[in-house]
Amino acid sequence: MSKNVLILPGDGIGPEIVTQAQRVLELVNQQDSLGLEFSEAKVGGAAIDADGVPLPAATLEAAHAADAILLGAVGGPKWDTNPDFQIRPEKGLLGIRSNLGLFGNLRPAILYPQLAHASTLKPEVVSGLDILIVRELTGGIYFGQPRGVREKEGGIREGYNTYVYDENEIRRIGRVAFEAAMARDKRLCSVDKANVLEVTVLWREVMEELSKEYPEVELSHMYVDNAAMQLVRAPKQFDVMVTGNMFGDILSDAAAMLTGSIGMLPSASLDVNGKGMYEPCHGSAPDIAGQNLANPLATIISAAMMLRYSFGAGDTAARIEAAVSNVLDQNLRTGDIWSEGMQKVSCTEMGDAVMAAL
Amino acid sequence: MSKNVLILPGDGIGPEIVTQAQRVLELVNQQDSLGLEFSEAKVGGAAIDADGVPLPAATLEAAHAADAILLGAVGGPKWDTNPDFQIRPEKGLLGIRSNLGLFGNLRPAILYPQLAHASTLKPEVVSGLDILIVRELTGGIYFGQPRGVREKEGGIREGYNTYVYDENEIRRIGRVAFEAAMARDKRLCSVDKANVLEVTVLWREVMEELSKEYPEVELSHMYVDNAAMQLVRAPKQFDVMVTGNMFGDILSDAAAMLTGSIGMLPSASLDVNGKGMYEPCHGSAPDIAGQNLANPLATIISAAMMLRYSFGAGDTAARIEAAVSNVLDQNLRTGDIWSEGMQKVSCTEMGDAVMAAL
Ligand SMILES: CC(C)[C@H](C(=O)O)[C@@H](O)C(=O)O
Ligand SMILES: CC(C)[C@H](C(=O)O)[C@@H](O)C(=O)O
Repeated sequence: MSKNVLILPGDGIGPEIVTQAQRVLELVNQQDSLGLEFSEAKVGGAAIDADGVPLPAATLEAAHAADAILLGAVGGPKWDTNPDFQIRPEKGLLGIRSNLGLFGNLRPAILYPQLAHASTLKPEVVSGLDILIVRELTGGIYFGQPRGVREKEGGIREGYNTYVYDENEIRRIGRVAFEAAMARDKRLCSVDKANVLEVTVLWREVMEELSKEYPEVELSHMYVDNAAMQLVRAPKQFDVMVTGNMFGDILSDAAAMLTGSIGMLPSASLDVNGKGMYEPCHGSAPDIAGQNLANPLATIISAAMMLRYSFGAGDTAARIEAAVSNVLDQNLRTGDIWSEGMQKVSCTEMGDAVMAAL
Repeated sequence: MSKNVLILPGDGIGPEIVTQAQRVLELVNQQDSLGLEFSEAKVGGAAIDADGVPLPAATLEAAHAADAILLGAVGGPKWDTNPDFQIRPEKGLLGIRSNLGLFGNLRPAILYPQLAHASTLKPEVVSGLDILIVRELTGGIYFGQPRGVREKEGGIREGYNTYVYDENEIRRIGRVAFEAAMARDKRLCSVDKANVLEVTVLWREVMEELSKEYPEVELSHMYVDNAAMQLVRAPKQFDVMVTGNMFGDILSDAAAMLTGSIGMLPSASLDVNGKGMYEPCHGSAPDIAGQNLANPLATIISAAMMLRYSFGAGDTAARIEAAVSNVLDQNLRTGDIWSEGMQKVSCTEMGDAVMAAL
C-alpha cells in the first residue's frame, strides 16, 4: 500500500531545506522499499502570492488526503504588513493544524554532543540535554473565541482574545504527554499559571486526575514564569514538559535555543490517529533565503520523525539519524552551526553528505 | 514633611529580608535626614492566617495612605491547595497592584561583575548585561473579564480567561517604556504575538503611534517566542523591553535568571504619579524560610530604588548601591550566590555588612 507524503515547502529557506529532506526520503524509500509517494502544494506566503490566500482549498484537500506532511517554514517580511490579518502566511500554518486536528505537538530539545560548544550555556549545564516539550496545538488562546479589536465608548480601541480549554482538550494532550513520559524517564512536568489563570486551574486539575491512570509517571506542576527560569538555570532537571499552546510556543523556543543549534531540531504535530505534520523548529529565515546557506538537518531529522511516528519505519528513521550524526562527525557544518576548525558547507552539500552517509 | 513607608513582610523569607532592608533604610534615614516613617501590615499567606483573607481592608487602607511600599514576598505551599481561588497569597499581591493602579513594573536584569560566574550562560554572552524589562502590571489576561470555570453541554468543564487591553492602557505603559529608553540607550523592543493574537496587533499599532512622540528612540518589535529565544541567544542585544502582564511575567523571570543571581534583583511597580511598591524579583523561598539563610540584597536594592523613584533621594540610593557593591567586593556571599573561595554569611550578617559599609 502506498503512503502519500505531502510536501509543503512554504517560504524563505523552506523550499531549499525540504528539497534536501525529500532527496533523503526518496533514497531511503528505494533502499528500504517504503512505498512512499510524494506530492507538493503551496502554503503561507507562497500561497498568498499564487492564490491570494495562505491556505488554498487545494492545499487543504491535499493535506487531508495525505498520510503525512512535511513542511518547510512559513512567513517573511513581505507579508508581515498585510493589513488583512487573515491573509498572513502564519494563518496557513494555523489553518492546517486546526483543520487537520493536529493537536499534539512534540518538540524535542536535544543537545548534539558534536555541537555542545554552540550553546550559549555552560557545557556542564547543558551537556546531555534531552527534553521533550509536548505542546497543545489546536486550542487555547490561539483559537479561542471571541477575539478581535473593537471600539468601546468614546471610540477607544480595545483588543481582546480568549484563553479557553475544556477538560477533553486537556485530557487529550495530557495523554500524549503521559505516554511520551512512559517511553522515556517517566517524569512529567505540567506547566501552568494556576495561581492567576482559572483556565490553568482546570488544566492542573485534569492533569492530576489523569495521573491516576499513569501511576508510574511522576507528575509535577510548575508555574510558567518559574519554568522559563528553570530552563535557563538547570534544564536537565526536565524529562517531559506539557503545556498549552501559548506557553508551549514560548518555552519550546527557549528550550530549543538552549541547545544553541535550533537548526538541528525537528517537530511533529499529530492528530488523534497519529497522522502528522513534520517541520523543523526554526523559522523561514528570509535573510538567507535563496542563497544555498540554510541548514537542512532539522528538516531531514523531521523526515526521520515522520517515518518513525507516521509510518512505523523506526529502523529507517534511525538510519537517517545515524547519517546526520555521521556528517557531524565528519566536521561538516552549515553557517548556523559552524565554528573554528569545522568545514563550512552549503545546504545542498549538507544534503549530499547525508545521502552519501546513507 | 514626613514620608510614610509601609512595610509588607509577607511570607516565607519575606520577614527576614525586609527586616534587613528596613534597618538599612532607618540608618540612611538618620544619616541623610530623609524624614521616613515606617509602618507595617500583613499581606498574602500571613494575612490569610491572621485575618482569613490575603488582603485585609486595613492593609489596603495603609497601602493607599503610604507614600511608598516595601514588600518582601508572598506565597507558599501551605496556602497553595486552598480550594477557594480568592483566598490565595498571590491575590493579596494582585489586589494591591490593581487597587493602587501600580501599572508600571520595572524589572532590571543586571549582571553584577562580582557575580559573573554565577550565570549559567557563558561569560562572553552575559558580561556587562544590563536590560530593563517594562511590564504592564494591572491589565491583560491577569485581570481580564470574563474568567472562570464553567460547565458546557454534557457537563464538560471548561476554563476561560480573557486577554484584553485598550489603547489607553497600552499607551500608558508605552510611555513609561519610551521614557525609560530615553534615559538609557534609546532602544526599545516591544514584545507581542501580533502574528496570532489580535490584542497584540493593537499593542503593536499603539507602540508605533507612540514612537512618533519619541523620534530619538529606536523602536523594534519582536514576537514573544523569538524574544524568549533571543534572551538565551544574545541577551545583550536588548536595552529596554516592553510587554504585557503575562509575557512580562515570563520574560522578566527568564531575563533575571540569565544573571544567575536572582537574589540580587529589585523591582518597582509604579502608579501614574510615581508612587510605588518595591520588591525583590525572587519569591518567598519557603524551603529556607526562618533559617537566616536568605539573601537580603535584592530587597535592600529595592529599598534604594524606592528612595530614587518615590522620594527623589538618588544620592542616598547610590550610597546604598555602593555599599552593596562594597560587601560583594569583600567576598561576602549568602548561600544562593556563594562560590568556592567566598565567605558564606547569613541573612543578618549580610545586613550587618551593608550597614557597616554605610
Ligand atoms: C508561525 C507561528 C504562528 C507559530 C506559532 O506561534 O505556533 C510558530 O511560532 C511555531 O511555534 O510553530
Ligand atoms: C506571584 C505571582 C502572582 C506574580 C505574578 O505572576 O505577577 C509573580 O510571579 C510576579 O512576577 O510578581
